[in-house]
Amino acid sequence: MCAKNHLPDQVIGVDIGGTKVAAGIVDAQGNIVTHTRSSMNCRATAADGLASVISAIESLLAKASETPAKIHQIGICAPGPLDPRTGVIINPPNVPCWRDFPLADEVAKHFSSAVKLDNDANAGGLAEHLWGAGRGFKNVFFATIGTGIGTGIVLDGKIFHGRTGSAAEGGHVSIDLNGPVCNCGKKGCIEVLASGTAIARRAREKLAKSPELGARLLALAGGDAASVRSEMVGKAAEAGDLLSREILDQTLEYLAVWLGNVVDLLEPEVIILGGGAGEMLRPCFQDIQKRMNRWCVNSRYQEIPVVPAHYGENAGIAGGAALCLSGSLL
Amino acid sequence: MCAKNHLPDQVIGVDIGGTKVAAGIVDAQGNIVTHTRSSMNCRATAADGLASVISAIESLLAKASETPAKIHQIGICAPGPLDPRTGVIINPPNVPCWRDFPLADEVAKHFSSAVKLDNDANAGGLAEHLWGAGRGFKNVFFATIGTGIGTGIVLDGKIFHGRTGSAAEGGHVSIDLNGPVCNCGKKGCIEVLASGTAIARRAREKLAKSPELGARLLALAGGDAASVRSEMVGKAAEAGDLLSREILDQTLEYLAVWLGNVVDLLEPEVIILGGGAGEMLRPCFQDIQKRMNRWCVNSRYQEIPVVPAHYGENAGIAGGAALCLSGSLL
Repeated sequence: MCAKNHLPDQVIGVDIGGTKVAAGIVDAQGNIVTHTRSSMNCRATAADGLASVISAIESLLAKASETPAKIHQIGICAPGPLDPRTGVIINPPNVPCWRDFPLADEVAKHFSSAVKLDNDANAGGLAEHLWGAGRGFKNVFFATIGTGIGTGIVLDGKIFHGRTGSAAEGGHVSIDLNGPVCNCGKKGCIEVLASGTAIARRAREKLAKSPELGARLLALAGGDAASVRSEMVGKAAEAGDLLSREILDQTLEYLAVWLGNVVDLLEPEVIILGGGAGEMLRPCFQDIQKRMNRWCVNSRYQEIPVVPAHYGENAGIAGGAALCLSGSLL
Repeated sequence: MCAKNHLPDQVIGVDIGGTKVAAGIVDAQGNIVTHTRSSMNCRATAADGLASVISAIESLLAKASETPAKIHQIGICAPGPLDPRTGVIINPPNVPCWRDFPLADEVAKHFSSAVKLDNDANAGGLAEHLWGAGRGFKNVFFATIGTGIGTGIVLDGKIFHGRTGSAAEGGHVSIDLNGPVCNCGKKGCIEVLASGTAIARRAREKLAKSPELGARLLALAGGDAASVRSEMVGKAAEAGDLLSREILDQTLEYLAVWLGNVVDLLEPEVIILGGGAGEMLRPCFQDIQKRMNRWCVNSRYQEIPVVPAHYGENAGIAGGAALCLSGSLL
């Protein structure tokens, strides 16, 4: 009873992206009780960006008339780089209105609440650990495979931040020093090989060379190779499209090499994959795990499960809330 | 004063290899006061192997007549796989006499001492953190580059073990999924690309193709390419041997890609490199650091130093001792 009294019943989780602010009320079991979504004014002044966030939280509180008018804890996921210890947003390319902006302090002042801030993959990993596919595991590796690949590391039940809060940039682990150049400047990062964007790019490149192998994929894209997206590759592969199957097969191998590296360094108890392309790859998780065992010294002695994330679209809301409900950050 | 009373003044560190047992008395500042080296009977029975270890510790105590006759803490580094939590040696290929052997318990019984056990790279990293090149840093990445590449991760001042004690197999992080096959079965591990063994192998392969570029190296090897060892590559490169320079240059790039991956995942405060080939590469550490910055998202915001290990040949003795003097293991 005593320990429980220290935890609030409900908290607010906020997920800030380049174009939207999602906000939700989350209970102590990780259920999203109410949520809203509004637009983010990220290209105006810092004050305008802050106003978007405040108004999103106010609409949420208005909508949730059945909950207390005031909630004392708010957790925010935002695009990095940011400093989770000070709650300052540094200079995110997707939210240019903020540069060295003390977002946590500003929101805290407005609502007289405690506010925590972290990036979405770190927070998402924590939410999975507390309430999702990582429940019961203290050491979790979480990856969200979408436009890019973001990762979060939970060690001993806490987000692992590294020296300045920049650890867990797992999407930029290179598995091919001779591979294609990533947006980050490195070659062969898993992000440039296996993100949703990369899957679509590789499919388009292959279509240009061997259109006859990808007739179904091309049809799904309305006959326009430039319109191919990663979910179409998944659908076409399911329907037997040879080109799409080849692209997926190579993607599974890339992910296996990468996760093998992660396991050999970190030996987590569970690997959790989410994000849009992660969802598309879900039928292949067992295949990824089997291949990973061949790319992993540690798998000689054990099987580390590769499982789908519990939270989908609302991962950011759950992640924000998790920041409030977890202990101090490592 | 009070905290100091909990730490013994001196402890014993033991380093077990395939052919030798090194043992030393180490003070609370990490100085190796006395040490001995004897042979390891690793191919006979488990009891014979144990007898080698006990006799090494007894000769050490006999030699160190000026120290107390009894020392209450012993820390042992041994080849893995082993379980640091139970002190059991599982099935090390280099010490075949032991299979599921409770080494820590057996040594503890004989000397009525507390005994801790871990692998050499983990323990070596801890010793560097406590007394060596990692002093003042809580998060340390340590690698010993020799016949193979072993790594140890110190987080928050403790060895990071992962789920079962098998984390920090950093030598088997692959940076080239199309690379040569490592002893472990994976392709493109840093061990098969940049260990002392790999440096020598790559030099021999290159000599076979372009002997005219490696005249100096060949001379150092007595005219016999099969006798090339990694330290000869270092010496020949220094003397201007083109082939050796190319081999070293490629080695630095491999290490940079690998360490960039480590930094992007773990963001340690310092990277410490030791081992025989590590020593040979020491004049190039600044070059490795510069290259690493290009292979690392996190280096955009910071410089993470790459420094030589403090302990050389006696790293295993210091590592064993460190196991005694550190807090509980993560």
